[in-house]
Amino acid sequence: MPHSAPPHPPRTAADQRDFETALRDVFEQRISFNRVLGFRIESFDPLEPRVRFDMRPELVGHFLYGRLHGGVTSAVLDATAGFALMCAIADKHRDEPAEQVIHRFTKMGTIDLRIDFLRQGIGERFYAKARITRLGGRIGSTQMTLANETGLLIATGAASYVIS
Amino acid sequence: MPHSAPPHPPRTAADQRDFETALRDVFEQRISFNRVLGFRIESFDPLEPRVRFDMRPELVGHFLYGRLHGGVTSAVLDATAGFALMCAIADKHRDEPAEQVIHRFTKMGTIDLRIDFLRQGIGERFYAKARITRLGGRIGSTQMTLANETGLLIATGAASYVIS
Amino acid sequence: MPHSAPPHPPRTAADQRDFETALRDVFEQRISFNRVLGFRIESFDPLEPRVRFDMRPELVGHFLYGRLHGGVTSAVLDATAGFALMCAIADKHRDEPAEQVIHRFTKMGTIDLRIDFLRQGIGERFYAKARITRLGGRIGSTQMTLANETGLLIATGAASYVIS
Amino acid sequence: MPHSAPPHPPRTAADQRDFETALRDVFEQRISFNRVLGFRIESFDPLEPRVRFDMRPELVGHFLYGRLHGGVTSAVLDATAGFALMCAIADKHRDEPAEQVIHRFTKMGTIDLRIDFLRQGIGERFYAKARITRLGGRIGSTQMTLANETGLLIATGAASYVIS
Repeated sequence: MPHSAPPHPPRTAADQRDFETALRDVFEQRISFNRVLGFRIESFDPLEPRVRFDMRPELVGHFLYGRLHGGVTSAVLDATAGFALMCAIADKHRDEPAEQVIHRFTKMGTIDLRIDFLRQGIGERFYAKARITRLGGRIGSTQMTLANETGLLIATGAASYVIS
Repeated sequence: MPHSAPPHPPRTAADQRDFETALRDVFEQRISFNRVLGFRIESFDPLEPRVRFDMRPELVGHFLYGRLHGGVTSAVLDATAGFALMCAIADKHRDEPAEQVIHRFTKMGTIDLRIDFLRQGIGERFYAKARITRLGGRIGSTQMTLANETGLLIATGAASYVIS
Repeated sequence: MPHSAPPHPPRTAADQRDFETALRDVFEQRISFNRVLGFRIESFDPLEPRVRFDMRPELVGHFLYGRLHGGVTSAVLDATAGFALMCAIADKHRDEPAEQVIHRFTKMGTIDLRIDFLRQGIGERFYAKARITRLGGRIGSTQMTLANETGLLIATGAASYVIS
Repeated sequence: MPHSAPPHPPRTAADQRDFETALRDVFEQRISFNRVLGFRIESFDPLEPRVRFDMRPELVGHFLYGRLHGGVTSAVLDATAGFALMCAIADKHRDEPAEQVIHRFTKMGTIDLRIDFLRQGIGERFYAKARITRLGGRIGSTQMTLANETGLLIATGAASYVIS
């Protein structure tokens, strides 16, 4: 490979905007369950991708206390970890056009995940982050956190993904 | 305690029906997120409690293939494990009236869970089961499975709960 | 591939014995830590592969109670799950000679595991079992149990493996 | 309790040394399996407790490559998380004499753990760290990392403990 030219020059700022627009459309609109839960991309920064969502009555898991349902916590941490891997894969393949990178994501899938429910999910807005601990050829690993708008840590997670 | 009479005689069939009606109302209606996802109690049998739900467009996680979102899988397996522990606690405290047993559940909470996503979540109806591997004084442990209407195993899980 | 003859006929009873002898040597002797802990293959049955080991003073984790160290529990459940996948892969590739199948195992590796410590590890002899919940082209998933000589369930586990 | 004097004044430097000597004896000598594996306390700092051990032939899991056995990784991350909780509990109960704090540890136990095996366990010396994400009245939660002497991240973990 060292002697062959890359098929495309590194992604331009305009390409990156196209990529982010396309990925936002997939993440926020075309993955129906993300849309139902109101997940929004807060940052595409590959060093600290973030997702947010607002508390709503439909997301309540404990009717007495108005707490977030554990299933929402699991869903957002899984979605955020997958999103973080997408940002990292896009960053690794900066020479590919947006649609080619997005096509790579069709092969991704969660192998397994763990969620630790540390504190009650009380808050008005929640922020999920993921960091990548392995980006191999086939397997990606992540650690995730969920905090509310005051920065209180509500849950942590760890997950493994097939990435190609 | 051996010398004192139990505060109530064992639950009658009518008491058990009251308990099941009350628990169904909490599980299917008052836990908002369960209602949004359409989770229904299929069986109260303490040896094999089961929950079911139907596929719907809102639950899709992969727009290309119409697969169940991993967050729905996590949510139903967590909810089913909690429900299974409730059935086991109610069975252990058969001498308590329905409302007293239901009050016990306000102290329950998921400590952590693991989900293994084994196969694509394709199907029209899904069935979740949980079995209890520990019912201690403070900690409960469970193993869970999710299958579709053909019996295909889609996911397994394991979780720990504070139960008092 | 459907039109080409398999490179070898299905494994004969003698081939299978050679395979089992070779796998036992790798598992019990050449994986040093398994030898130090005294792990022994109890059964090669692909439907229920089993590993056993005897309690010894070196394996104690709680000096007051003489209980098994949690690290021994984790080690044996990981080793047994890997062994179960080896038996399943050997069964899937019955047309390959023993050394070719054993060579496949050099690519295997644990991605992640979960262990639930259900009861104190008290006993004279311990038995670990694993069942396979997924045997894909690249990823294998397992569930494991550890019991003592009376059949008391001490721990359960779940793990994911790269298998090729 | 607010009106009663604490039973003891805060731990003196001499008390703390006694506590560390006693805890080191329990951790390195009296937990037999820790001694067999060569685990040593590297730091009692409650903000970053650390454990180390040296590579030795007995700890090998993959005879071809001389890699650390996954069971050693699981064992050291579980032991380090438990040690970190002990340091945090001792810090929380600074008004108690050493032996009283050590007595608290007899009630501790691992509920469950997850280990992610990120890279091959190659190295001469390994360092394990744990940070506490929850220190409740009954449940403690931790995240752990294992690195070799060059700082390469080899594994991460998460675990839940009963702490009283």
